[in-house]
Amino acid sequence: MNQTRNLFYAQSGGVTAVINATACGVIETARAHRDRVGDILAGRMGILGALREDLIDTGKESSASIAALRHTPGGAFGSVRYKLRSIERNAAEYQRLIEVFRAHDIGYFIYNGGGDSMDTANKVAQVARTMGYDITCVGVPKTVDNDLPVTDNCPGFGSVAKYVALSTLEASIDVVSMPETKVFILEVMGRHAGWIAAASALAGEVRSEPPHIILFPEVPFDEERFIDKVRETVERYDNCVVVASEGIRRADGGFVAESGTQDAFGHAQLGGVAPYLAALVRGRLGYKFHYAVADYLQRSARHIASAVDVEQAYAMGKAAVEMALAGVHGKLPVIVRTSNDPYRWEVGQADLSAVANVEKTLPPEYISDDGLHVTDACRRYLSPLIQGEDYPPYRNGLPTYVRLGNQLVEKRLPPWVG
Amino acid sequence: MNQTRNLFYAQSGGVTAVINATACGVIETARAHRDRVGDILAGRMGILGALREDLIDTGKESSASIAALRHTPGGAFGSVRYKLRSIERNAAEYQRLIEVFRAHDIGYFIYNGGGDSMDTANKVAQVARTMGYDITCVGVPKTVDNDLPVTDNCPGFGSVAKYVALSTLEASIDVVSMPETKVFILEVMGRHAGWIAAASALAGEVRSEPPHIILFPEVPFDEERFIDKVRETVERYDNCVVVASEGIRRADGGFVAESGTQDAFGHAQLGGVAPYLAALVRGRLGYKFHYAVADYLQRSARHIASAVDVEQAYAMGKAAVEMALAGVHGKLPVIVRTSNDPYRWEVGQADLSAVANVEKTLPPEYISDDGLHVTDACRRYLSPLIQGEDYPPYRNGLPTYVRLGNQLVEKRLPPWVG
Repeated sequence: MNQTRNLFYAQSGGVTAVINATACGVIETARAHRDRVGDILAGRMGILGALREDLIDTGKESSASIAALRHTPGGAFGSVRYKLRSIERNAAEYQRLIEVFRAHDIGYFIYNGGGDSMDTANKVAQVARTMGYDITCVGVPKTVDNDLPVTDNCPGFGSVAKYVALSTLEASIDVVSMPETKVFILEVMGRHAGWIAAASALAGEVRSEPPHIILFPEVPFDEERFIDKVRETVERYDNCVVVASEGIRRADGGFVAESGTQDAFGHAQLGGVAPYLAALVRGRLGYKFHYAVADYLQRSARHIASAVDVEQAYAMGKAAVEMALAGVHGKLPVIVRTSNDPYRWEVGQADLSAVANVEKTLPPEYISDDGLHVTDACRRYLSPLIQGEDYPPYRNGLPTYVRLGNQLVEKRLPPWVG
Repeated sequence: MNQTRNLFYAQSGGVTAVINATACGVIETARAHRDRVGDILAGRMGILGALREDLIDTGKESSASIAALRHTPGGAFGSVRYKLRSIERNAAEYQRLIEVFRAHDIGYFIYNGGGDSMDTANKVAQVARTMGYDITCVGVPKTVDNDLPVTDNCPGFGSVAKYVALSTLEASIDVVSMPETKVFILEVMGRHAGWIAAASALAGEVRSEPPHIILFPEVPFDEERFIDKVRETVERYDNCVVVASEGIRRADGGFVAESGTQDAFGHAQLGGVAPYLAALVRGRLGYKFHYAVADYLQRSARHIASAVDVEQAYAMGKAAVEMALAGVHGKLPVIVRTSNDPYRWEVGQADLSAVANVEKTLPPEYISDDGLHVTDACRRYLSPLIQGEDYPPYRNGLPTYVRLGNQLVEKRLPPWVG
């Protein structure tokens, strides 16, 4: 005889074009197991929703709305960057979580996020057992940064990679068309890991094609080498396309974007790598430039999501619920690449502790010898992840993204004083 | 008995996602009239190609390559911002053009561009006749800015409008998902006319939905009113999405982007409206912000082109050739809206002189009373232009954009000394 318990799902950290596809996989799979899963509750604003007892009743949503999550970007239930402190330093927070879980008979905890979030999931998994509360905790990987270890890649990355490769390709065609513009710079996300910038390399097949220069956080920014390479590229090809990670740093460790440039109020400029590099190029070389800053557009571009990414994001959500129902505790599903050509992958499992707080940056063998581009090995790794288009439906010229009602269940506990 | 003459086609000014669809319409239509049109030559880098006798022989391209132009962004033959001076001030330039045309028996001159280019086409039309050279000159409208008079809209605008509306929608979903971010600013093109910024309004249906604030070049930037509106919006909806034209100006006429902000080299910052506004919001209100600068991405985004726009761009190219063959001289085809709901349009004709050098900015009845949004009349005008998707074919996860061989015909004249 199976016992019916409720399920809690939350999204954490920066959202992606496909984290809602994971939510869709979680909810649809849980709904298909009514004998085991009762209410499917989602945290309003991630783990804060659990602490505040802001629990969204996904049962109020039609199957059509839940199905539409598969093609809707953003975080349907809200997401925050909130990291639980260590148990020693804040036992009350963990106790509160367990109280809320107990009050709502949560038997399954599914936490969808990056490295920090896997750490949170891992702590919750440990504390619950220590406190004698019966719950099965499973993580689900998500991050545009692709910086989780163990898993071959992270859901969310393939779509931003496709967007960045595509945008680099399209903008480069524009630059080539306009011989007056010599340098184009595209700033992409990546504070510590250069995976997103690396994906721009797929816009060309050889180094003579744009992008000509890629700047990674893993490679200290060398102004002279950069300027020399821009000059050489413009002299040879009449233009130069640069893709820069927002997190590039100088040899002394300081962010390039914060070094020297100030805004109108005298604050160090943030997220301004592209304007900084553009000014540098103009100042040193006098070339006419254009720059773009992709920012949120890159991670919300569901309209051009990678079909492989959508499929994997959904599969991770589905697998997480299946693992939880099988009593797998303290783990997360991961993507295992079993073949590169043709690309094949399967769902594996890893310990939350192996993934928590470990950052996977670009390995040296994926960066070209001069530090300004990728290797063929990197291309072979990246290319399968951007395959296939998974277009959302459109109405009146725009995608029909769903917005859920997000009705909260009635609170059963006094307010949280965090 | 028909006489066979050669045709010269050139692209001018900033390129668009669909100017090559117009080129496709020109070349396919001309190829279908072999009894009247001999060689179809394209100017390498626009009108400069004619002056330098850099004439691309499009006959070297397969029908498949020409057909692929329909789904390829950028300017396939290169484009420049080169404005012929007045005949009085530079008769030599016009004489050179006619010499080149004569040397290659050009009987049809098709010039594809914006207001400046229609002025050039008009001058060439007048000078050729004055000089006794037999040629039929027809313009073709093109500009992402949508600032040509007479025509209901310009090919190129519908696609950038769709991109901007879609990007605003997607980024807004991201902002709503992340309650820590309060203000998101998207900078779009538009030095003098706010049509592109206005198109972002289609992302929402009412003013309570993003974008909450739209800044137009037509409305002097009032810092206090802007700051008040941002504060009010964040207090009411917990976030505020702003779309700003790059060309917004203060009441004194100075560009906002050039007023106060300096780069690392002490130069006034260009194209930096979004970072400027972001710094202003942080300085005055302390809100956490994100900003994006779409730049070339918006006008090269063929992957999400408006189907209406592609169709109109092709139709304009086709009509231009048909007009030239019918001996219509000194005119251009235009788009005439015959019905709004359902949307219907047809091809009309206008005099080049009526379109040359006249800028159509947003009319007052399209701007809301507070100057920070659009009216319903504006929505009704814009909405039909972004309808339909016209996806390019993909291979390996990216669109298969064509790159032509662009072989030049043999020169018959001494080099141009311009």
